[in-house]
Amino acid sequence: MEPPDIVRSAYAELIVTDLDRARWFWVDVLGLAVTEEEPEALYLRGYDELTHHNLILRNGSAPAAARLAFRVRADEDLARAEQFYATTRRVPKGTTKGIGEAVRVADPLGFTVEFFAAADHPDRLQQRYDVRKGAEIARLDHFNIVVPDVRKAYDYYTELGFGLSETIEDDQTLYAAWMYRKQTVHDVAFTGGDGPRLHHLGFFTHESQQVLRVCDILGSLHEERHIERGPGRHGVSNAMYVYLRDPDGHRLEIYTSDYYTGDPDHPTLRWDVHDPRRRDFWGNQIVPSWYTEATMVLDPDGAPQKLIKHQQTPEKTVGADGFSR
Amino acid sequence: MEPPDIVRSAYAELIVTDLDRARWFWVDVLGLAVTEEEPEALYLRGYDELTHHNLILRNGSAPAAARLAFRVRADEDLARAEQFYATTRRVPKGTTKGIGEAVRVADPLGFTVEFFAAADHPDRLQQRYDVRKGAEIARLDHFNIVVPDVRKAYDYYTELGFGLSETIEDDQTLYAAWMYRKQTVHDVAFTGGDGPRLHHLGFFTHESQQVLRVCDILGSLHEERHIERGPGRHGVSNAMYVYLRDPDGHRLEIYTSDYYTGDPDHPTLRWDVHDPRRRDFWGNQIVPSWYTEATMVLDPDGAPQKLIKHQQTPEKTVGADGFSR
Amino acid sequence: MEPPDIVRSAYAELIVTDLDRARWFWVDVLGLAVTEEEPEALYLRGYDELTHHNLILRNGSAPAAARLAFRVRADEDLARAEQFYATTRRVPKGTTKGIGEAVRVADPLGFTVEFFAAADHPDRLQQRYDVRKGAEIARLDHFNIVVPDVRKAYDYYTELGFGLSETIEDDQTLYAAWMYRKQTVHDVAFTGGDGPRLHHLGFFTHESQQVLRVCDILGSLHEERHIERGPGRHGVSNAMYVYLRDPDGHRLEIYTSDYYTGDPDHPTLRWDVHDPRRRDFWGNQIVPSWYTEATMVLDPDGAPQKLIKHQQTPEKTVGADGFSR
Amino acid sequence: MEPPDIVRSAYAELIVTDLDRARWFWVDVLGLAVTEEEPEALYLRGYDELTHHNLILRNGSAPAAARLAFRVRADEDLARAEQFYATTRRVPKGTTKGIGEAVRVADPLGFTVEFFAAADHPDRLQQRYDVRKGAEIARLDHFNIVVPDVRKAYDYYTELGFGLSETIEDDQTLYAAWMYRKQTVHDVAFTGGDGPRLHHLGFFTHESQQVLRVCDILGSLHEERHIERGPGRHGVSNAMYVYLRDPDGHRLEIYTSDYYTGDPDHPTLRWDVHDPRRRDFWGNQIVPSWYTEATMVLDPDGAPQKLIKHQQTPEKTVGADGFSR
Repeated sequence: MEPPDIVRSAYAELIVTDLDRARWFWVDVLGLAVTEEEPEALYLRGYDELTHHNLILRNGSAPAAARLAFRVRADEDLARAEQFYATTRRVPKGTTKGIGEAVRVADPLGFTVEFFAAADHPDRLQQRYDVRKGAEIARLDHFNIVVPDVRKAYDYYTELGFGLSETIEDDQTLYAAWMYRKQTVHDVAFTGGDGPRLHHLGFFTHESQQVLRVCDILGSLHEERHIERGPGRHGVSNAMYVYLRDPDGHRLEIYTSDYYTGDPDHPTLRWDVHDPRRRDFWGNQIVPSWYTEATMVLDPDGAPQKLIKHQQTPEKTVGADGFSR
Repeated sequence: MEPPDIVRSAYAELIVTDLDRARWFWVDVLGLAVTEEEPEALYLRGYDELTHHNLILRNGSAPAAARLAFRVRADEDLARAEQFYATTRRVPKGTTKGIGEAVRVADPLGFTVEFFAAADHPDRLQQRYDVRKGAEIARLDHFNIVVPDVRKAYDYYTELGFGLSETIEDDQTLYAAWMYRKQTVHDVAFTGGDGPRLHHLGFFTHESQQVLRVCDILGSLHEERHIERGPGRHGVSNAMYVYLRDPDGHRLEIYTSDYYTGDPDHPTLRWDVHDPRRRDFWGNQIVPSWYTEATMVLDPDGAPQKLIKHQQTPEKTVGADGFSR
Repeated sequence: MEPPDIVRSAYAELIVTDLDRARWFWVDVLGLAVTEEEPEALYLRGYDELTHHNLILRNGSAPAAARLAFRVRADEDLARAEQFYATTRRVPKGTTKGIGEAVRVADPLGFTVEFFAAADHPDRLQQRYDVRKGAEIARLDHFNIVVPDVRKAYDYYTELGFGLSETIEDDQTLYAAWMYRKQTVHDVAFTGGDGPRLHHLGFFTHESQQVLRVCDILGSLHEERHIERGPGRHGVSNAMYVYLRDPDGHRLEIYTSDYYTGDPDHPTLRWDVHDPRRRDFWGNQIVPSWYTEATMVLDPDGAPQKLIKHQQTPEKTVGADGFSR
Repeated sequence: MEPPDIVRSAYAELIVTDLDRARWFWVDVLGLAVTEEEPEALYLRGYDELTHHNLILRNGSAPAAARLAFRVRADEDLARAEQFYATTRRVPKGTTKGIGEAVRVADPLGFTVEFFAAADHPDRLQQRYDVRKGAEIARLDHFNIVVPDVRKAYDYYTELGFGLSETIEDDQTLYAAWMYRKQTVHDVAFTGGDGPRLHHLGFFTHESQQVLRVCDILGSLHEERHIERGPGRHGVSNAMYVYLRDPDGHRLEIYTSDYYTGDPDHPTLRWDVHDPRRRDFWGNQIVPSWYTEATMVLDPDGAPQKLIKHQQTPEKTVGADGFSR
């Protein structure tokens, strides 16, 4: 069965428990642009994003990831999605503000995923340096999801047509994998653990200075507890990064300077799980919460997905992660 | 007729008149990595490049651009190229070191263009920060070519399947256009003038600091005459740039921080030729040589191509380019 | 006669013809912090400045520099100033908001100069990254003044106890000189021309990115005409720079990364006027206005100072300034 | 008794157990320039340093800090040093290569300290961007020493004429202090612990990118174990930093973007020991080794100094240091 032709990771909807507080974090501090707002939801985008949003924040009773959305190439890919998945629901244009007709599915990993082909184009902000602030986020870059069986996730996304840029592995186990449709290191990556959960949303910025700046701002506000891990340089992807936690504990990554993966024979880079540089190229320790905490996901009806226990050796018990010093 | 499925601009071959002097410039100063060398040629790549080379420098009697090469998706695209073009020549694997079987054509604009699907993979240098130097070039980004009729070039590349990211125009005239296959602002751009000539090769770096650094190095060596224009921020593409001239006068651009263009409905950004920010977002003057000087190109037999006179109003006589101050 | 013990260049008062427009430029765009405001004046400082202000903008009928102020070590230096200068006036504490008792003088070069020992300390903003914007100016760095006779200015400031960090010269002529009290390249520099006039105020930032950013912001606002020269790297001082013009034509420099000059035997660096790197290390052309335009200065009574004609060969007719290409 | 008029921290001599390995680290990786070398010693400086050296590495049997050297204003300060200290030794010009006549003392804290007024001037490297590499160190910035009684160290350095820029304290205890002669945050700082020991040498670079780059290089070489703490932003000093350990365990800091302290009434910034931002403005954990490990110091005769036990509550048991998350 031919899968839908996915263009890229496009947006996520996060449930937050205090929209005002979430707005403070995502808009005032991080600097995402507000495309549209409703009493119970915000539609946000990065400065380079030319579609309606990269992130929806919606008020709810418990923190969760409602869905992950991929843009597909054309309308016929919606029909392909309906054939490819067992459980699907077609939602009309505008069900999500700024987004055309879409198909929502329960994917085999337990995530609610949306495919859409059309989206509204808001004003270009790329060259509005006068309004930039915070982390100066350019666009959504990727989803990182927690799955109990990384190989199963890899197989599923391979079937969906994703390429494999990098892995963390040893002879027995695939601990993590980075897979792409657009020509970057990834649109989706897998972290092993109880799942399905959302590990983090990755947002792209143009330069390392913006990774540092958002930390400086959080320190200035004495809100440095929102900085969970980093800044650092990844081994995997070679990107500069910092991981932040929003007021509901949702994790995001500010991510910059990965590389082009568009060649048809793009070679996979395989990291040994024992290499302490794989997660932090400078060998810095990974805080334990980064491996264990993640965001609950909702099924297509909005109910929390049940967790399946992690089915392989945890990477953090195998990988060195700076503890070798 | 279906065109070859072009993946990206891949490499160029430049004829230089003193290979030692060219090596000094491209390798010692700019820091391109040497994949392979022969008595009369150097094969160079950026640190992120995962194929054999981005640039061949070959000793010859007069400065010229011997050919521009695009990577195509698969072997069958070589046959497509043979059907698409009037004049073609298939060259066996290894005719160009590190490159598989290829088809060379005389394109309708007068350039010698090569298409190839396979290439050797050299060592990854992406994370060899210990050997980086100079401008720390990551990869080739684009070709900028001088053509007497920009609209004709635009039409031809549209037929080849290129998308249009940005233009400089007014009601009557298309002065310049930026077109892409990979998901960046361009693989090829057109500058109006006597053509066919090669205006410049664009090389990508990851951060603005590298644009500044290469200038500092040239100043240190009292070789600042190699800096022709910039550093600056482009209006078109939003990239930071500097234009350099090599010892033979070949122009290159160090280019960083443009944007993703991979969405199927990516909107074109059209700049008014009268906007002084279009070529330099800071309104700095464009030195006249940048508009008028360029590299002669060779036909598939290695003979210099005859120039066709510029057939439209020169942009420099229309555009403001900082002279409005 | 012992001169006052000058600590550093401290602040300037500029007369502007439209305070709202000046506020837009200096506060909204450049990002200087407002310490205090009055209907007809603004008191501004950089984020690192720990005294009341680095700049006073005052409404007036014609653009001018009302005075340049140096901080001195102690109260007794006010008496020393009174003895050192022919024409002096003691003004009580608070005559200038935030500034203690002061002595104002007409200096031998025709500038109105103020000396003060005490100043109010406003809130520290150094680690308020959350409020930074624009060029993120840290502090005032230096005054650059236009004088008809550079050697006379050099002699006078030598007598005042300033050290000489760099010069532009040839066998006959001293074209420019950089002199310091604090441990940086300069507190004052001299440009040859009709004088006395104020050439520019130099403001320090911490990194090169801030020099680039202010240009990006001006481009975004289509106010790029305020960018006069640069960005570039100076030969003299090794600093990254850009020169801007405010709405009244007052020139300022955003300046970063010069060097320590605090050793008692700090050696002077002498640049040959023919070295095209002296003013721009990358050999870029200097726009003619940079050499010829400057701000009128007021005498201690607030009347415009008469200009004395330039008394030596203009540097711009001798120096190469990129025109050698 | 008038103390010697100290200009700044100038150089240190470290004993290393394998000079080749030390050269690899300090010269090949960090990029310090070699002013002079002997079979058993290297004399190194930063690119901005205009005197002979900032660091001597000397082969020996056990890692140690042989002495810390301050430059003084004039020859008469050598005599002042002889009067100020109980135990002194005058050493003739050239005893240390490149350094004039000097006085070496055993200071009240147990360190061997040298005062000198004259030094040789090597070639200027400030604008030799063509030879820069590694961390592109500009100059020595400060000494950080471990002392059992921080207040005693503060009192002694106050008597020596040092200013106090910042502290870490609570109502009972002074945990750490930063003191300066040159116009930066410090020439010397105190860390509480068993002492006398050398905590680290601080080296200044011009931009944050250089802090990141040296880490990237160490990762590239799989020598990331030399990175002990950071990169990060200090609360105290507001500087970007990373702490490295050389092959003998000597600690150094790459340090950039602190601030001007030259005003006579420069106000002290006092950090509460409970503020988790004081040591890392982003709230990142401080690795325990950073608080406990340091370099043994030698007495003027070259014998190891005996340690005095820490005489106050350790800061690490009081301060939050990111453990509050």
